[in-house]
Amino acid sequence: MASTTLQVNEFRLIAKSGNARRGTFATAHGLVETPVFMPVGTQASVKAVDPRLVAETGARMLIANTYHLWLRPGAELVAEQGGLHAFMRWPHAIATDSGGFQAFSLAERVKVSEDGFEFSSHLDGARKKLTPEESMKVQGLLGSDIALQLDICPPGGAADGVLLDAVARTTRWAARCIEAKKPGQALVGIIQGGTNPELRLRHAEELARLPLEGLALGGFSVGEPNADMHRTLAVVVPFVDARRPRYLMGVGTPEDLVKAIGCGVDVFDCVMPTRNARNGQVFTTNGKLVIRNAIYREDKRPLDEQCDCHTCTHGFSRAYIRHLYIAKELLAYELLSIHNLRFYARLTHEARRAIEQDVYDTWAHETLRGWQMGKEIRS
Amino acid sequence: MASTTLQVNEFRLIAKSGNARRGTFATAHGLVETPVFMPVGTQASVKAVDPRLVAETGARMLIANTYHLWLRPGAELVAEQGGLHAFMRWPHAIATDSGGFQAFSLAERVKVSEDGFEFSSHLDGARKKLTPEESMKVQGLLGSDIALQLDICPPGGAADGVLLDAVARTTRWAARCIEAKKPGQALVGIIQGGTNPELRLRHAEELARLPLEGLALGGFSVGEPNADMHRTLAVVVPFVDARRPRYLMGVGTPEDLVKAIGCGVDVFDCVMPTRNARNGQVFTTNGKLVIRNAIYREDKRPLDEQCDCHTCTHGFSRAYIRHLYIAKELLAYELLSIHNLRFYARLTHEARRAIEQDVYDTWAHETLRGWQMGKEIRS
Repeated sequence: MASTTLQVNEFRLIAKSGNARRGTFATAHGLVETPVFMPVGTQASVKAVDPRLVAETGARMLIANTYHLWLRPGAELVAEQGGLHAFMRWPHAIATDSGGFQAFSLAERVKVSEDGFEFSSHLDGARKKLTPEESMKVQGLLGSDIALQLDICPPGGAADGVLLDAVARTTRWAARCIEAKKPGQALVGIIQGGTNPELRLRHAEELARLPLEGLALGGFSVGEPNADMHRTLAVVVPFVDARRPRYLMGVGTPEDLVKAIGCGVDVFDCVMPTRNARNGQVFTTNGKLVIRNAIYREDKRPLDEQCDCHTCTHGFSRAYIRHLYIAKELLAYELLSIHNLRFYARLTHEARRAIEQDVYDTWAHETLRGWQMGKEIRS
Repeated sequence: MASTTLQVNEFRLIAKSGNARRGTFATAHGLVETPVFMPVGTQASVKAVDPRLVAETGARMLIANTYHLWLRPGAELVAEQGGLHAFMRWPHAIATDSGGFQAFSLAERVKVSEDGFEFSSHLDGARKKLTPEESMKVQGLLGSDIALQLDICPPGGAADGVLLDAVARTTRWAARCIEAKKPGQALVGIIQGGTNPELRLRHAEELARLPLEGLALGGFSVGEPNADMHRTLAVVVPFVDARRPRYLMGVGTPEDLVKAIGCGVDVFDCVMPTRNARNGQVFTTNGKLVIRNAIYREDKRPLDEQCDCHTCTHGFSRAYIRHLYIAKELLAYELLSIHNLRFYARLTHEARRAIEQDVYDTWAHETLRGWQMGKEIRS
């Protein structure tokens, strides 16, 4: 392992195991070891969890949503408060998305043009315009370490013509984002192209010619069959510029992570650990557990006997958490969210170890099989 | 200060300042220094706050609700899990109420007789019967350090005839509770009598003849004018048996605590710090603060610059907490609850110091005046 110090925004590959990669990305807020999973802090909070406890799960980079924070409390206000890190008391790395996906999916009366998105805020109906330049300005004010370009993200199953237009416009917007971005902030381009490998590969090459600090795979997990995503990742990811971190946006299940890391993905984000926690779904080393199930009524065991999270090591039993969950006590959401976040952090930690030891495929196979057996044991 | 070790359930007076008292009550789960405020953990959780952080506010005794826990998850289940302390991960003292107040106010189709309360559960309509014996059995199974007798609590402004009947039946039920209680568990009798000092004093004397470890003042803060409560407390509390801790149930505001401690009350409980937190009301050394107020939009200060709570010492600004509150982020409820609980814990801590130094009245006067001035400054 080379010992020279990394510069901010520099990515270094440390090891490979098959297509799986072990790397380090340097930010002004610490080194990020990849493969890495980013918890989602939509509105400048990882829902229900104190930031100290988020960090205690092992997370060292999270992602916040530009659309939400732009509308409320406003990017200028966050900048005035010292930026997102100071505002939300998170001393580690932060990425922000472009706001485009939410503007398209959450806002009302959306118009898309070459210039950008026009829409009405879902909060108060105010007419807003999100261009590549505005997205860069807002992300600059938020002060994230890593910004995402504004892109066009077609829904799953979109026709090739739609995908082609999205790819072309996304490339043009990438160039505008590069011009407009805040100096020093890392910028990640977004590869589109649906489940069409040829289109994906061509777009990946196009974007790789631009001075972008990372390359993301957008437009997955947007309604297409899960198998189509993995088939596409398997043939595309190994050919995405190896010198830059590869980020699979909005994905996914633990199984998705294990498979995608095997293809060479480095960075992930998803609401799944925290959202599923609030719905009472728990990830364990033996598969999923639904805490409101009556079989846990008197179960004195922790959520996962092999887990080292705050919840599992402080004696909170399944019986107690089930009681809290059924009684709608807010503590349930924090305890379950912490556990699921730790599950994701530990999963990427184990993946990193497996890559370093060049046993990734064996580890992945055994890990997936363990979850599968857990399902079989209980059914 | 005598240095002999206290036995479990023993109360020792350490100092007096006017009528205000400084004492120690020994439980199997630690010493409780009085005057003390008990956070409310209705359903075996102090709402929205991890028990570690509840303890970090300085709280060393909390109160849980027998009615709620009896119905869900059930007292046998809690006993099977090792009792409330183990179940909810609270290693310090726990009191439980009798369940009567909630059976009367929350349940449906309630019938009151000499035997007890019959009612239909507000959760599933199941017909239940709460007698003095059943309440003792349930509290014994929950395993609290301190149990409350089943009592009759008339609403504020009840006629003397109603109060007289309530007092008489409450005494009879106290005797039944003493017979039925779990050995070793402390039992507290409840003085009724509304705002009638003569009735209160007579009931206090009646109950003082029974082997009860504490004497509570019930039937306050049930709709009567606040001034009537304080007038009654001033003439009654100093004459309640001085050898036992005096507990003012369900009270109250910080002002209420300061005044009642001055009359000789030792123990309090109230949902106010946590409920007000969830409604965005914050207690500070300069008076109350409503966090959603627009004047806090860009306020970088902590909730209270003189506060040493987790929230105020970890850099969470008013601007950030206001944002979380308005965005309905669950973290807001935890941060605000911790702060308000610490406010109450610090208030009783300061009261204890003032009594030890025999300057209680001066301290109380200045404390009340400080809050009053804060109100004037802001209005």
